[in-house]
Amino acid sequence: MTSRRNFLTGAGAIAGAATAAAVSKVAMAALPDAVTQAKPDTMPPVVPNTGRPYSPVVTLNGWTLPWRMNEGVKEFHLVAEPVVRELAPGVKAHLWGYNGQSPGPTIEVVEGDRMRIFVTNRLPEHTSIHWHGQRLPNGMDGVGGLTQKHIPAGKTFVYEFTARRPGTFMYHPHGDEMVQLAMGMMGFWVTHPRGAHPLIDRVDRDFVLLLNAYDIEPGAYTPKVSTMLDFNLFTFNSRIFPGIDSMNVRQNDKVRIRIGNLSMTNHPMHLHGHEFVITGTDGGPTPKSTRWAEVTTDVGVGQMRQIEFVADQEGDWAFHCHKSHHTMNAMGHDVPTMIGVDHRGVARKITSLIPDYMVMGERGMADMGEMEMPIPHNTARMMGGEGPFGNMEMGGMFTTVKVRRDQKPGDYSDAGWYHHPAGTVAYEFTGTLPSAPRADVPARPAPGSKDVEVQIRKPSGRHLGH
Amino acid sequence: MTSRRNFLTGAGAIAGAATAAAVSKVAMAALPDAVTQAKPDTMPPVVPNTGRPYSPVVTLNGWTLPWRMNEGVKEFHLVAEPVVRELAPGVKAHLWGYNGQSPGPTIEVVEGDRMRIFVTNRLPEHTSIHWHGQRLPNGMDGVGGLTQKHIPAGKTFVYEFTARRPGTFMYHPHGDEMVQLAMGMMGFWVTHPRGAHPLIDRVDRDFVLLLNAYDIEPGAYTPKVSTMLDFNLFTFNSRIFPGIDSMNVRQNDKVRIRIGNLSMTNHPMHLHGHEFVITGTDGGPTPKSTRWAEVTTDVGVGQMRQIEFVADQEGDWAFHCHKSHHTMNAMGHDVPTMIGVDHRGVARKITSLIPDYMVMGERGMADMGEMEMPIPHNTARMMGGEGPFGNMEMGGMFTTVKVRRDQKPGDYSDAGWYHHPAGTVAYEFTGTLPSAPRADVPARPAPGSKDVEVQIRKPSGRHLGH
Amino acid sequence: MTSRRNFLTGAGAIAGAATAAAVSKVAMAALPDAVTQAKPDTMPPVVPNTGRPYSPVVTLNGWTLPWRMNEGVKEFHLVAEPVVRELAPGVKAHLWGYNGQSPGPTIEVVEGDRMRIFVTNRLPEHTSIHWHGQRLPNGMDGVGGLTQKHIPAGKTFVYEFTARRPGTFMYHPHGDEMVQLAMGMMGFWVTHPRGAHPLIDRVDRDFVLLLNAYDIEPGAYTPKVSTMLDFNLFTFNSRIFPGIDSMNVRQNDKVRIRIGNLSMTNHPMHLHGHEFVITGTDGGPTPKSTRWAEVTTDVGVGQMRQIEFVADQEGDWAFHCHKSHHTMNAMGHDVPTMIGVDHRGVARKITSLIPDYMVMGERGMADMGEMEMPIPHNTARMMGGEGPFGNMEMGGMFTTVKVRRDQKPGDYSDAGWYHHPAGTVAYEFTGTLPSAPRADVPARPAPGSKDVEVQIRKPSGRHLGH
Repeated sequence: MTSRRNFLTGAGAIAGAATAAAVSKVAMAALPDAVTQAKPDTMPPVVPNTGRPYSPVVTLNGWTLPWRMNEGVKEFHLVAEPVVRELAPGVKAHLWGYNGQSPGPTIEVVEGDRMRIFVTNRLPEHTSIHWHGQRLPNGMDGVGGLTQKHIPAGKTFVYEFTARRPGTFMYHPHGDEMVQLAMGMMGFWVTHPRGAHPLIDRVDRDFVLLLNAYDIEPGAYTPKVSTMLDFNLFTFNSRIFPGIDSMNVRQNDKVRIRIGNLSMTNHPMHLHGHEFVITGTDGGPTPKSTRWAEVTTDVGVGQMRQIEFVADQEGDWAFHCHKSHHTMNAMGHDVPTMIGVDHRGVARKITSLIPDYMVMGERGMADMGEMEMPIPHNTARMMGGEGPFGNMEMGGMFTTVKVRRDQKPGDYSDAGWYHHPAGTVAYEFTGTLPSAPRADVPARPAPGSKDVEVQIRKPSGRHLGH
Repeated sequence: MTSRRNFLTGAGAIAGAATAAAVSKVAMAALPDAVTQAKPDTMPPVVPNTGRPYSPVVTLNGWTLPWRMNEGVKEFHLVAEPVVRELAPGVKAHLWGYNGQSPGPTIEVVEGDRMRIFVTNRLPEHTSIHWHGQRLPNGMDGVGGLTQKHIPAGKTFVYEFTARRPGTFMYHPHGDEMVQLAMGMMGFWVTHPRGAHPLIDRVDRDFVLLLNAYDIEPGAYTPKVSTMLDFNLFTFNSRIFPGIDSMNVRQNDKVRIRIGNLSMTNHPMHLHGHEFVITGTDGGPTPKSTRWAEVTTDVGVGQMRQIEFVADQEGDWAFHCHKSHHTMNAMGHDVPTMIGVDHRGVARKITSLIPDYMVMGERGMADMGEMEMPIPHNTARMMGGEGPFGNMEMGGMFTTVKVRRDQKPGDYSDAGWYHHPAGTVAYEFTGTLPSAPRADVPARPAPGSKDVEVQIRKPSGRHLGH
Repeated sequence: MTSRRNFLTGAGAIAGAATAAAVSKVAMAALPDAVTQAKPDTMPPVVPNTGRPYSPVVTLNGWTLPWRMNEGVKEFHLVAEPVVRELAPGVKAHLWGYNGQSPGPTIEVVEGDRMRIFVTNRLPEHTSIHWHGQRLPNGMDGVGGLTQKHIPAGKTFVYEFTARRPGTFMYHPHGDEMVQLAMGMMGFWVTHPRGAHPLIDRVDRDFVLLLNAYDIEPGAYTPKVSTMLDFNLFTFNSRIFPGIDSMNVRQNDKVRIRIGNLSMTNHPMHLHGHEFVITGTDGGPTPKSTRWAEVTTDVGVGQMRQIEFVADQEGDWAFHCHKSHHTMNAMGHDVPTMIGVDHRGVARKITSLIPDYMVMGERGMADMGEMEMPIPHNTARMMGGEGPFGNMEMGGMFTTVKVRRDQKPGDYSDAGWYHHPAGTVAYEFTGTLPSAPRADVPARPAPGSKDVEVQIRKPSGRHLGH
C-alpha cells in the first residue's frame, strides 16, 4: 500500500522528472523529452497548468504523461521499451511498456485539443500504436501494414490528430499485437469534455485502471507470450494484490472508476456494499435512459466500462474480479485435489524417502494463506494480503475502496484500516448475544424469549394445485 | 423429474423438518435449529406464516431455509459442511455446502426485515460468508481477514443486518474462496419488495437457479479444486441434466427466472420459443427504459440476471446454456476426432490385441447418445435424457420450461410430455405433403401445382454498381 | 479479397444455379431443388422477385438461399452434408454444412411469410434444425428427441411455420449438437419487417456474419470436435483473414452488421474509427432508449448483435475480434517464449545436430509475419495479410470496412486500398516536422519555437490534502 509518505515522494518524482525535462533539453529541438517513471506507486492527480483546464484522473499504481504546448498543439512523447515492472513488493516482471513502466502513462487531453504524439521505438522489433476508440484520420489509426508502415526498431514516428469526442480510450500496439499485448504494452487515454456535458457528471474521484493477465512461471521474469487461456497472474495496471493500492475516498464522494480490459477473457468487476451504474463505454458516455444498477459489470476484452457510485457507506470495501482464480497469485492449475483424503500415512512413507514432501490441501487451501511456506524466488504468495483481521487470502485482481468520513477532499492517501463502530462486525457466538444496542443492526433479542416463534411451514393448498 | 408424489413428500419433509425443529430445541436457547435437507428435489414455494407476507420463489432442485422470529428479528441458521449432492440419479458428488445440500438453501426476506444469521462452520478449515450485493455495515460484509476474522472450524459466527433494498443476491465464502466455490459453497438470497414497487411486477412463477461448474473425473466423487478452465460438469443448482427438474408453468403465466453465476466463465442462457427481458441484476431492478428483448442472455461470473417473459406458447421449451460443451456431461476434451476416418481395418487389428477396443465417432457422436456403452461407476452419460421422440443427447446445463394450458395456478408439478396438436410436428417427407389443415402452419400446397414459381434470381444492376 | 470480376462471376453462379434448378426438376414434384454453392465468395444481395419486397442483406463470403413460392408458401430446401470449405486461398477444411458450404446459406423472408423448409440429411448421422429465436409451434422447434424425431441419415424432414416477428435469427442442429456445431453446421436467418417499423431503420448496407472457431491441426483438414477451449482458427462465416472479404461502403452510408456467435466463447467485436449502437438482438430490435455508443461489443455465445453506424470517415477501418489470439491463424499455444534470450550460441550447437533448427522469437514475433518460413501444407500463415504499408500481421477474425466517397450506391465491390490525403498518415520523425498544412491535423509547429512551453507539473496542495 502506498503510504502518505510515498504519495508525496511520488508526486515529487513526477514534478522532478518534468522539471528535469524542462532543463535538460536534447539537441533535437522538436522532439519533446521522454519523461519516464521509475516507481510503481499511485501518483496524485496532476492539475494542468497549460492548455484547457480539466479535473484530472488518478491512475492506480500509475501516472500521467506530461506534455508540452507547441504553438497550440499538445505534444507528448511515448517511448516503447523493455521495462522492469514491480508487480508487487519483491516480485518483478520483465515486460515491454512505455516510458519506464507497464502500463504506459495515462494521457489526458481535452475535447478539441490538437495533439502530436511522438512514438520512439526502443524495442527489438517493430511496433505501432492504435488509438483505440478515437475518431481520427485513417492514416493516424495505427494499424501497422494497413494504415501506416510499422515503426522500425530505433525509429520515432509522429501521430497527429484532434481530440474529437470526450471519452475514455486506450492505446496499444497494432503490430505483432498478440506478443506486444502479452508483454504489457498498453495505456489509458482520457479526453475530458470541454465545458459542461449533459451526460458527464462532475465527480469527486476519478480512477483509471487497465486489466491484463500474464503467464509467468513461478521464479521466472518474462511472460510466456503464446499463452492463450491459462494465465496465472491477473493484474490491475500490471500490479497484483497485495501490491495494488487502495482507492481512498471521502464518504459521500461521487466516485468514477474507468476500467479497460486488454487481456484475453472477460473480467467481471465486483464492488462490495454499493451499487454502481455504467456511465460510459469506449464509445462515449451512456444516455441516462440506458443505465441500470449493478454490483458486478462484466468487462469484455477490448472494452472500457466507466462506473460511478456514491460512496455513502464507510468501510473497507472489496473491489475485485469475481472469477475466483483471478484473485489468486501464481499457482499451478493442475495441483491434485486432496480434499477428503487422509494421506498422513502415505505422507509418512513418502517423507522417509523425500524429506521435503509436505502434506497439504487435504482440508482445503486456507493453510496456504497462513503457512510460511517456502516459495520460489520472485514469486508472490498464492493467497496473501494481511488485513486487520488476518490473512485476506487474495491475490491478483483485488483491492479495496476505503470510504472514510474524515478523508479530506482531494486527499488520496491511505488512512489505514477502518475502525468499525462497536457491534457492527460479525462475531463468534458463544451461547448468548451481546446486549449493547447497535447501529443498523437488529436490536438485541432476549435469548430464549417468549417472542421466539418458530416458523412452522405449512405447504399451502394453493401452491400444490389441489 | 420430480413427480407430483415427490413434490408432496418434499413439502412434507420441509414442514416435518421445521416442525421437528420446533419441538427438539437444543440446550443453547439462542441458537436456532439447523434445518437440513436430505433430498435434491424441487421443493414447493413456502408461504411465510410469520413476518411480512410475500410471493415466494421456487428453487430449482432446491429449497428455502425456514427462520424463526425473535423479537422482531428473523433468525436463520446456516451450517457450512461437507455434503453428498446427488447431481443426477445415480451420480453423487462429495461437495461442501450448507445444511445438507449444495447449493445452500435459498433465503427469502422482505425489504426492511431485520435479520440475524448464525453460521456454523463444520468444514475442516475456516470460512466466512459474503452477502453478495447487499448494503450492510462493513463488518457484516463477510470478507475474512478484511472485515472480520475467518470463522474457525467448529465455531459459530453471527451476522446481523437489515434488508435495505429489494433484490436478488447470492451468498458465498470469502475465505479460501477459490477452493470453497469449487466445492459448491453458494446459495441464493431474495429480498422481496415491501409493498408495490414500480419496477417489480407481480409474476405467476418465480424460479431461482445458480450456475456452477465442477471438474470431477469420471468415476470419482470430489471436484478438482485447482481447475481454472477445463471443467467437465456444468450445473444448475449443482444438478446436471437429466437430473434437473423442468419448470412447469401455466399458459400465459408471467414467469420470472433469477439466474446467478458463480462458476469461472460466462454462461449464455437461452430460452426457446419466447423472448424475455432482463428486469433485474444483483444491483436491483432495471428501469423499464433499459430493457430490450433477448432470447439469450450472457450471465457473467458473479452476476445475477433476472429474466421475465409471458409463457404464451404451449409446449416443452428448451432452456439451456448455449455453449454446446456445457450441455454435455463428463467427457474428455482430448478425445481424438475420427470423423471421416474409416478405421475399421485398423480397429480389427487393434481388437485382436485389445479386445475391448471400440470403434466410435467416425460418423459423429450421436451413437454415444444411443448406445448402451459401459461407463465408469458414478458417471452420467455424456449425452442423455429420454424425450418423447428419443434421446435428447443433452447433459449439464439443460432443462425445459413446460407450458400447459391446463397447468393449475400454483401447481408446480410435472404433467409429462407435451401432446402436440396434429400437424404441428416436423415430419418426414416421403413424396407428398399431408392434406390436413394445420394451426399456425402453412396451408397444404398441391404438389406439382401450377402455383409453384421458382424464384429466378437476377443480379440487379443497381447492386453491382455499373 | 473478392475482385469485381469474382463478384460478377459469383452473381452469375447463383443465377445460373437457380435457373438450372428451374429447368431440371426432379421427379419428386413437391421437393424443391437443392441449390448449392461452390464458391466461398461474397455474393451480391439478391432482390426478391417473388413474395413481398425487402431490402436484402449481404452475407460476408456467403450467399442467400433461393426459394420457390408454392400456393403462397415460401419453400426452401436445405441439405445437411459434408462440405469442403476454403477457409482462405490455399487452405481447405473438411466440414459439415448446408448446400455445399459452411455456414449454410442465409435465409431471408418477410414478417408474416408462411414457410416450408425441407431438410435433407446427407450426413453419416442423424441431425435436426433448431430455428434459434423464432416463435413457432413447439413441434417445429427442432430439438431432436424433445420436439421431434431426429432426422435419420438419408431422410428429408419438413418444417412449417410462419415468420411471426422481424429479426435476425440463426439455424443450427439440436442433435449431437456439440459435434455438429464444431463441424460448422450453422446459418443465418433474416426476417425483414413488413412495412415500416418504428425501431428498424432503413440502412444502405446490411451485412451478416457468423462467428465460429475450429481446432484443426496445421496440415490437417478435419476439426477436432471434442475441443472445448483451445481452438486455433477463429472465423467469420468459416473464413480466416486474409481470406475474408472487406465490407465496402459509400461514405455516409448507414451500415448495419448482424453478428451471430456459435462458437464456445465471447467475441468482442471492435470497429475502428466509428462508434456504433446495438439496434437489435436475436430477441428483436432494441428500443431507442436502451442504445448506447460502443466501439467494441462483446457478442456472447448463442447471441446475435446487430450494430449500426454511419460510415462518415473515409479509409480502411479494421473490424475484428479484440482477443489478440483470435486474429492469429493456427499456431501452437505452447511455443516457448524466447524474448530476451540470446540463444544464438545454443542455436549454433543445435543446428550442427538438426540442420533445420531455426532461431525465432527472441525479439518478438514480428519476424513471423515477414519471413518466408516453410509451413505445413494446407496451413495459413500465423500472421498475414499484405496491406498497402506492409504485412498486417493478422489472421482469423479480422477484416476491414472500406469507406469511400466514390463507392456507388449498391456497389459492393472492393475498390482497393485507400489513398490517404497528404499529411494524414503517421510518419517517421527525422528531426523536423513537415511544413504542409494538413486536414484535421494540427497545424505545423515551428521546431524550437518560443511558443513551446514545457508543462511543469506542480502537485496541487488541494490534491494532497495538507
